[in-house]
Amino acid sequence: MTSEFDLAMDLAPRTAGAGCASFTGRFTHEWMIGNAVNGGVVMSLATTALQRQLAGSGGHQDLLAFSGYFLTPSAPGEVVVETTVLRSGRTLSTGQMSVSQTGPDAQPVERLRALASFGDLDASAEVLRSAAPPLMAPPEQCLATEQLPPSFLNATSLLERLDLRIDPATAGWASGKPSGKGEMRGWLRLRDGRAPDPTVLLFALDALPPVAFDLGILGWAPTLEFTGHVRGRPASGWLQVALTSENLTRGLMEEDARIWDSTGRLVAQSRQLCGVRIPATS
Amino acid sequence: MTSEFDLAMDLAPRTAGAGCASFTGRFTHEWMIGNAVNGGVVMSLATTALQRQLAGSGGHQDLLAFSGYFLTPSAPGEVVVETTVLRSGRTLSTGQMSVSQTGPDAQPVERLRALASFGDLDASAEVLRSAAPPLMAPPEQCLATEQLPPSFLNATSLLERLDLRIDPATAGWASGKPSGKGEMRGWLRLRDGRAPDPTVLLFALDALPPVAFDLGILGWAPTLEFTGHVRGRPASGWLQVALTSENLTRGLMEEDARIWDSTGRLVAQSRQLCGVRIPATS
Repeated sequence: MTSEFDLAMDLAPRTAGAGCASFTGRFTHEWMIGNAVNGGVVMSLATTALQRQLAGSGGHQDLLAFSGYFLTPSAPGEVVVETTVLRSGRTLSTGQMSVSQTGPDAQPVERLRALASFGDLDASAEVLRSAAPPLMAPPEQCLATEQLPPSFLNATSLLERLDLRIDPATAGWASGKPSGKGEMRGWLRLRDGRAPDPTVLLFALDALPPVAFDLGILGWAPTLEFTGHVRGRPASGWLQVALTSENLTRGLMEEDARIWDSTGRLVAQSRQLCGVRIPATS
Repeated sequence: MTSEFDLAMDLAPRTAGAGCASFTGRFTHEWMIGNAVNGGVVMSLATTALQRQLAGSGGHQDLLAFSGYFLTPSAPGEVVVETTVLRSGRTLSTGQMSVSQTGPDAQPVERLRALASFGDLDASAEVLRSAAPPLMAPPEQCLATEQLPPSFLNATSLLERLDLRIDPATAGWASGKPSGKGEMRGWLRLRDGRAPDPTVLLFALDALPPVAFDLGILGWAPTLEFTGHVRGRPASGWLQVALTSENLTRGLMEEDARIWDSTGRLVAQSRQLCGVRIPATS
């Protein structure tokens, strides 16, 4: 049976030219956060399209690096991904992606412009140094998504696709007591058992509640720019995801994410720059 | 008198169309590291071109975020930067850059493909949280570039443009004794007194000797992907730059950079993914 995640990544070839290709897919109401399609789904769909194009030309197949600039929020409905291979070398293939949807005036509106490099994770698999996974409560002592505030749960259909357990030490926001440290940690796996791979890791880097919640910033913090690196092929089982943020102005903050697989190996990390609205009175 | 940095950023308009523009510039032997033009100069030139295009259309002028994928090494000589504005909104302007040079067969060879967002740093200036600057020896107790090994100095004309003082605690590599911690720290300013601004910060994020040196990896560690965020308008004076790296495989490592200005405010941070060659016998 095809997993929910793979269904969301389903793409039909549309056009193919010299170094360029386009694909059509569909965003559904199943992967929403607030009124927008989750950014991780948009990024993963974009890289899946580029991966498909690279597969057709014998290019590399393991996502190593992704950078995306979000231009407008994505909505449920048809989506077009245009891809361009910029360079296919011996160890890396690099390309560009543009995700767009049809706007109210029937013109295409660009959602995301992105760049990514693919390589061979097995060629650089041996770990010489690695950040240690964070100390956190085991999954069964964490907050399950069902225990999150209904106001958040109901606006986030995405959470129904996930088995997410939030470390109680970073879940104070759920009961109105954010720690103020700028931390969010959780165990994550896809609810239908779909095993993690580099594309799932890219999605997982942006799947936890925003670290802004732990600073008491509960409004929408839209991602302006997101860059993720995949550093290893993840083992099956739980992913351990830790978010941090150190720098906040009245307009911008960063959210750093790190993911360890079930063997304790760091397999992905990211940083995103988010816009925040903080009233001058707070 | 025009500063050396501004001379390196000099661009002549070439073409301009609907949302697109191109500029010509020149890479010189003055900003080399090894056999290639320093990546920071390439990135800063790209953003300078986009900034110029945005200026022509009333777009935002402060660099906030930059992501670049390095496709081939840049060489001294003429360079073309093509820019495209993807979106100009109320708070952000986002665009794409392509840097290319003419190859041996007279065809253009792309050096860098990049995306960037510009905004208004003054609109989000107030700092609510900030990482503290690192403790390090004062500039006069640090290693000046003249004290670095001649083998490195002679290959790095870039250093002649800089007043760089390396914290002795992270300068062990210069005498064959790298700390192994994955740290590099220094004080940095442009030697001719040119004050820092967002474009200089982007350059400065990639201007120190590679953090790989502190791990005993002295070979070339080419940047595959680089993303930098400018978080504040820098005050004049010394910049404090700190590099770290935590994750290393036999093929890839990350280099994180943070910059504080002379008031102790974090004004920029970046992460780059670098390729590394480590013999299996080491």
